[in-house]
Amino acid sequence: MITSTKTIIEKYWKAINDRDWKSFEQLVAGDIIYILPQSREKIRGRLAFKEFNETYPGNWTLSVTTLVTDEKRAVSKIAFVNDNEEQTGISFFELQNNVIQKITEYWPTPYEPPLRNCDYIERY
Amino acid sequence: MITSTKTIIEKYWKAINDRDWKSFEQLVAGDIIYILPQSREKIRGRLAFKEFNETYPGNWTLSVTTLVTDEKRAVSKIAFVNDNEEQTGISFFELQNNVIQKITEYWPTPYEPPLRNCDYIERY
Repeated sequence: MITSTKTIIEKYWKAINDRDWKSFEQLVAGDIIYILPQSREKIRGRLAFKEFNETYPGNWTLSVTTLVTDEKRAVSKIAFVNDNEEQTGISFFELQNNVIQKITEYWPTPYEPPLRNCDYIERY
Repeated sequence: MITSTKTIIEKYWKAINDRDWKSFEQLVAGDIIYILPQSREKIRGRLAFKEFNETYPGNWTLSVTTLVTDEKRAVSKIAFVNDNEEQTGISFFELQNNVIQKITEYWPTPYEPPLRNCDYIERY
């Protein structure tokens, strides 16, 4: 059976948001690699990655705000709300044989604009 | 003529890297919107956006490391090297009529890992 990349990523985020770890396990490869380049953290393997998500602290929910996919890759943007604080998560997915093989994830944080003397930059 | 989203985004980054502002102008809509959510900055219009890029300080170069596209949207990851310092840029593109209509861009920065007592998280 061929499942689209889009469907797999939608199921992945739904499983996490629902704390449905049985579905979650079926969507990721046994030797999945999860990488957080900003903190240089890495998790290897389905069970470790499941435990990481399952034990993630806080009373959080998430929703997918953007999802762009091709045949074997996807990029999603999520709004992650943890105890009323909202963060943006950006995840790059690589798939093989209808499961997620690798995730490279970024959590960009607010910063003050650098000093540039430009009339054409607005703040919102 | 139909040009693929992938080709348009590749040309866009090549034009910026080459300081080829004539090509750049042809790839973005007259009323393009460029948004930096982390600093809540916004630029409207082709000329303002061109000037923003043209006057960007430093002796920088960039290369595209990931590019995922569908019919009307794209996400790219670039390595932006400015005076030997490398940053990661993540850009979400929306296209209309073969030009770029909107760009939402993130510049995630390094952070120290949060304290979590987990054996399965490696550092690299």
